[in-house]
Amino acid sequence: MVNGIVLPIKKVFSLVDSKITVEIKDDGRKLQGRLVAVDEYLNIHMEETTELNDNNQRGRNLGTVVIRGNNILSISPVI
Amino acid sequence: MVNGIVLPIKKVFSLVDSKITVEIKDDGRKLQGRLVAVDEYLNIHMEETTELNDNNQRGRNLGTVVIRGNNILSISPVI
Amino acid sequence: MVNGIVLPIKKVFSLVDSKITVEIKDDGRKLQGRLVAVDEYLNIHMEETTELNDNNQRGRNLGTVVIRGNNILSISPVI
Amino acid sequence: MVNGIVLPIKKVFSLVDSKITVEIKDDGRKLQGRLVAVDEYLNIHMEETTELNDNNQRGRNLGTVVIRGNNILSISPVI
Amino acid sequence: MVNGIVLPIKKVFSLVDSKITVEIKDDGRKLQGRLVAVDEYLNIHMEETTELNDNNQRGRNLGTVVIRGNNILSISPVI
Amino acid sequence: MVNGIVLPIKKVFSLVDSKITVEIKDDGRKLQGRLVAVDEYLNIHMEETTELNDNNQRGRNLGTVVIRGNNILSISPVI
Repeated sequence: MVNGIVLPIKKVFSLVDSKITVEIKDDGRKLQGRLVAVDEYLNIHMEETTELNDNNQRGRNLGTVVIRGNNILSISPVI
Repeated sequence: MVNGIVLPIKKVFSLVDSKITVEIKDDGRKLQGRLVAVDEYLNIHMEETTELNDNNQRGRNLGTVVIRGNNILSISPVI
Repeated sequence: MVNGIVLPIKKVFSLVDSKITVEIKDDGRKLQGRLVAVDEYLNIHMEETTELNDNNQRGRNLGTVVIRGNNILSISPVI
Repeated sequence: MVNGIVLPIKKVFSLVDSKITVEIKDDGRKLQGRLVAVDEYLNIHMEETTELNDNNQRGRNLGTVVIRGNNILSISPVI
Repeated sequence: MVNGIVLPIKKVFSLVDSKITVEIKDDGRKLQGRLVAVDEYLNIHMEETTELNDNNQRGRNLGTVVIRGNNILSISPVI
Repeated sequence: MVNGIVLPIKKVFSLVDSKITVEIKDDGRKLQGRLVAVDEYLNIHMEETTELNDNNQRGRNLGTVVIRGNNILSISPVI
C-alpha cells in the first residue's frame, strides 16, 4: 500500500451499483452492466451485462458475469 | 481484503455444485460443466465438462478439467 | 485460503505419479506425460512427456519438462 | 522491497497530476491523459483521457478510465 | 508452500550450471544456454545463450540474458 | 527467497546506470537505453531510450520510459 495516495481501485469502488463499461484485453470487446462487486485484483461481478459491438451498440445479453481482473483492460463509468 | 464489500469470488463460490459456463481468454472457447471447486485465484475444478461451439451447441466431452484462473475470462451461471 | 472448500489444486495433487494431459495457453498444443511434481502456482514437472497433435496422436518426445503454471490452460487426467 | 534503490514506480508517482502517455500491451494503442492515481501494481486512474492514433494524433475522448497495470506496457511523461 | 511434495522448481534448481533449453511463450522461439541463476518465479539468468531455429539448429548468439519467468513456457535439460 | 543462490534479478541490479537492451513480449520490439531503476518485479525505469528496428538499428527516441515487468521478455547488457 502507498500512504497518502488515493488508489486507482478507489475510483472503481466508487462505481459499485452504477453502470460501467469494461473493455476486455486483447479482443476489443466491451461489456456494459451494473457493477455489483469488485476486489483488490479488479475481479468484478456484473449484473444485467450486455455486449457492446464496434459501434458501441448493445449486442447479446449476458446477465450475471464474473470477470477475472487480469483480463480486464479498463473500467469506465457510463455517463 | 476489502471490508464491507461482497467480493466477486463470493458469487463464484455460490455456484459450487451447479452448472457454469467458463469463457477462455483469447481463444473465444467456452466450456460448460459442474463446478466442483474454486479458489481465491479463480482456479476451477469442473466435472462433466463439455466444449461449446460458436453457436453455443455442445461439442467434445472433456470430463474432469482443472483450469488455471488467469486464463479464464469470465464465469457465468447456466440458467 | 478458503476454509471448508476443497481446492482445485487438490485435484491436481491427486494426479501426481499418474498420466496427465496439459493444454498450453494460446497455442492449442497439448502435452502428455507423467506428473512428477506440482506446486501452488500449478507449475508442473513432467517426465516421459510427448506432444499430442490436433488429432490427439502422439508427436515428438520431449522427455523431462518443467512448465510454468501461468502458461497452462488446463490439466486433465488421462483415462 | 529493495533497499537503497530508487524504485521505477517512484518515477510514476512523480507524474501524478501531470500528463502521461500510456502504451497498451499487445494492441499498440496509446492513451494520453492526466494521471490522477497509481498504485504499486501500476494500476492507473486517468482523467481527460484521449486515444492517440498511429501518427500520435488525438482520437476519441474517453474521459475517466481506470487501466489495470498488467495490461500496460509503458508509461511516459508528456513533454 | 506444500509440505512433503518435491516442488517443480527444485528440478530447475538442479539444472544450475548445466545447459538448458528455454521455450518462450507464444512465439515458439527456443533459447539454449548455461543456467546461471533461477528464482522462485522462474526468472532465469543464462550465459552463452543462443537462439534455436525451427529445426533446432543454433542461430544468433545472445550472450548474457535475463528472462522474466512469466514469459517462459517451459524449461528442459539439454541431454 | 531462495538461500545460497544468486538471484537472476541481481544480474539486472548490476546493470543500473549502464546501457541495456529490453525485448518486449509478443511484439518483437526492442528498446535500448540507460537503466535508471529496477525492482523485484523487473519493472524498469529507463532514460535516453530508443527503439531498435529489426536490423538492430536505432529508431524513434522515446526518452523517459517506465516499463512494466510482466511485459518484458528479456533484459541484456549492451556490450
